[in-house]
Amino acid sequence: MKVVKFGGSSLASSTQLNKVLNIVKSDAQRKIIVVSAPGKRSADDEKVTDLLIDYADAFLANLDYQEIQDRIIQRYEAIAYELELGETIIGDIRQGILGLAEETESSQDAARVMDRFKASGEDNNAKLVATYFKKNGLNARYMNPQEAGMIVSDEPGNALILANSYSQILKLRDTDEILVIPGFFGYTKDGDICTFSRGGSDITGSIIAAGTHADLYENFTDVDAIYAAHPGLVKHPHKIKELTFREMRELSYAGFGVFHDEALIPAFRAGIEVVIKNTNNPSAPGTRILLDRQLGDEGVIGIAGDSGFAIFYMSKYLMNREIGFGRKVLEILEDESLNYEHMPSGIDDISIILREHQLTSEVEDRLINRFKEELHVDEIYVNHNLSMIAIVGEGMKSNVGTAAKSTNALSAAGVNLEMINQGSSEVSILFGIKSCHEDIAIKALYKTFFN
Amino acid sequence: MKVVKFGGSSLASSTQLNKVLNIVKSDAQRKIIVVSAPGKRSADDEKVTDLLIDYADAFLANLDYQEIQDRIIQRYEAIAYELELGETIIGDIRQGILGLAEETESSQDAARVMDRFKASGEDNNAKLVATYFKKNGLNARYMNPQEAGMIVSDEPGNALILANSYSQILKLRDTDEILVIPGFFGYTKDGDICTFSRGGSDITGSIIAAGTHADLYENFTDVDAIYAAHPGLVKHPHKIKELTFREMRELSYAGFGVFHDEALIPAFRAGIEVVIKNTNNPSAPGTRILLDRQLGDEGVIGIAGDSGFAIFYMSKYLMNREIGFGRKVLEILEDESLNYEHMPSGIDDISIILREHQLTSEVEDRLINRFKEELHVDEIYVNHNLSMIAIVGEGMKSNVGTAAKSTNALSAAGVNLEMINQGSSEVSILFGIKSCHEDIAIKALYKTFFN
Repeated sequence: MKVVKFGGSSLASSTQLNKVLNIVKSDAQRKIIVVSAPGKRSADDEKVTDLLIDYADAFLANLDYQEIQDRIIQRYEAIAYELELGETIIGDIRQGILGLAEETESSQDAARVMDRFKASGEDNNAKLVATYFKKNGLNARYMNPQEAGMIVSDEPGNALILANSYSQILKLRDTDEILVIPGFFGYTKDGDICTFSRGGSDITGSIIAAGTHADLYENFTDVDAIYAAHPGLVKHPHKIKELTFREMRELSYAGFGVFHDEALIPAFRAGIEVVIKNTNNPSAPGTRILLDRQLGDEGVIGIAGDSGFAIFYMSKYLMNREIGFGRKVLEILEDESLNYEHMPSGIDDISIILREHQLTSEVEDRLINRFKEELHVDEIYVNHNLSMIAIVGEGMKSNVGTAAKSTNALSAAGVNLEMINQGSSEVSILFGIKSCHEDIAIKALYKTFFN
Repeated sequence: MKVVKFGGSSLASSTQLNKVLNIVKSDAQRKIIVVSAPGKRSADDEKVTDLLIDYADAFLANLDYQEIQDRIIQRYEAIAYELELGETIIGDIRQGILGLAEETESSQDAARVMDRFKASGEDNNAKLVATYFKKNGLNARYMNPQEAGMIVSDEPGNALILANSYSQILKLRDTDEILVIPGFFGYTKDGDICTFSRGGSDITGSIIAAGTHADLYENFTDVDAIYAAHPGLVKHPHKIKELTFREMRELSYAGFGVFHDEALIPAFRAGIEVVIKNTNNPSAPGTRILLDRQLGDEGVIGIAGDSGFAIFYMSKYLMNREIGFGRKVLEILEDESLNYEHMPSGIDDISIILREHQLTSEVEDRLINRFKEELHVDEIYVNHNLSMIAIVGEGMKSNVGTAAKSTNALSAAGVNLEMINQGSSEVSILFGIKSCHEDIAIKALYKTFFN
């Protein structure tokens, strides 16, 4: 039995839904279908979920929301008309959208209101997709998450599946029908809707795959595979056939954007195999994500980069004799609610690498002053506009020379290394470089390891 | 005006003292001479300071100490007789050594007793050296540290110079006489002797050089220079002409053993230039240690290595989302009174590199349990027998390719890299490797950067 999740781009239009239908029809094991809300039909289109957020904002602010209701309904109508689904489903969806405003107490908690509105994107789409499947001969029905057993904690926008939900979800395994379940939300014990935080439909699919002990969790998106480097930088990059969860985590660090890696935790912990596939090219094998994999000769299986880092450099004579210095640095960061990525330390120096978006110039000045006044550093300065590049691979551990090959490649490309971090992770080496060199760096590394 | 310090090997025998005399005679600016106790005359000889420690231990334990008194006195006698210094100084020294036991209350605090005994090594030697200088036509005299202004905190074995001592020390600048001052100890305000902790006579020399605003602080030892790599590993290693304080610190990390780098803090902070010279070859230029230096083409000026490290590796899914994880790791280390050297962190991994001597198997097991129970890590293991290798140089910052050259060299030599740490320090790159590869690694790096 396979659990299959389709993302927004796979459900954005009738053309896409037709592909989805064929995918489900082509494999009788595809029994539980988790769906997102309709995504963008083109680059400048709007996601239905974003429209629903605008709708909720307008409702909460007592502004006029009729125009936005129309826009939302029209998105579903366009699909439903093209697929000739008939008036009933269109009427249901229209009533569902209008009903959000009609049936919500304006006094209700804003976060809860937001969750109800947002969830309706997936919910209505699941009904639409189920109708479409049935119309085309599949023994399919819509199943509400509450019925499916998706009982979650009462934390709007940040729900967690409750541990004892899994026994209910297990019962879905024996379904004769194809179940179309909306992703992204669950119900509290009291029957309130709460959405998951990030990568919502991915989380639902992952939970259901884990709960039903699925043989496979197929995550359909709009790329053939996870690539060894970003297709925007490298022409026709190598498609990764298999990744371990660890490797995927390291690559996601730099935001491949295929899906949210954290969403896979439930599948990971239950040992469910995951495969990433392309709705637009379903016969392509995709990328399998496993707990472990057979290692080949390759050391490096992927390269990822991300910009937007800053580095605070500090030195103090005899720093390494000061017990607790590093701990005090981290306490100051924590006190300022700042996350740090890395903290390479030397004898008399320490550097902190952070994501720049956390730093206003006010925060930055305050941090510098605190390090001076509370830790009495001799010297401190900040470099902005840094990128982190990760080369990733379980096989790197046994491959003497990966560090040499990569530093060589970067050096030959004229890229100066602000930071090298090898040793913390078994499956990656991290380089810090100036962001203006990010593209060159990734291309140089790709060429070294894949050509 | 120059402050000159002579270490134990330079004062171990009459032959050595003759060289010292000639060094002081050859430059009229050499006005303040700081001396250690007599050192080893040969590899299997004993240092006078170690004999004095044995003497103190015996005294405190009420054991017989006559034999050890004789051994100590005989060391000074041998030198004094060969230099034909006459009976007066020999009698003074003999009385000084015997007097330690006679004049000390057995009830006195053990640490204070130890300090008094240890300090007599330098103290008696300064009297001997002053006598020798006078006999040979120099206008020289012994000066007690109390008279010199070396007033220190009341911390036996770990004294710190008091801030207002410096104004007293400054008066020494105008001396007409050559002053021979024993290193290693000072006096509390109450007149008790307290020794410095490490590199004792180096600290005295450094303090006096700083206090007198000396033009130069000459540190005479038994090597021509600080070498670019350990002479035990590399034949005739390059002699470093100039080092910055920062570079010297990084090289000392791996225990070059020439002198105690921390001892130079007072000179460093006062901007006094320091030079390391060889008593046995005083015309060799030695190594100058400066605040800044003119950078040449060379990126790397030295390579140092040290063994005895262990690495704790830990991983936990979503570690980098857990606010405060790194801080909690450091708190546990601090709670266990453990110093850490480096803590490279990744996305889901963190490693801690520590000096192994801190870890009994009990401490190690406890640490592992605490990380499991308090931090719920998924995986944790420890690797022992690691070495850290540092390549050092102020010029490395602007030398693209140093990382590449070094990782290449190590890779070609078959050395696997457990850790690379670049970025925390501006003037060094640190490599963690298995200790069995330490020698090969240093040789390979030396060949790359110096041949």
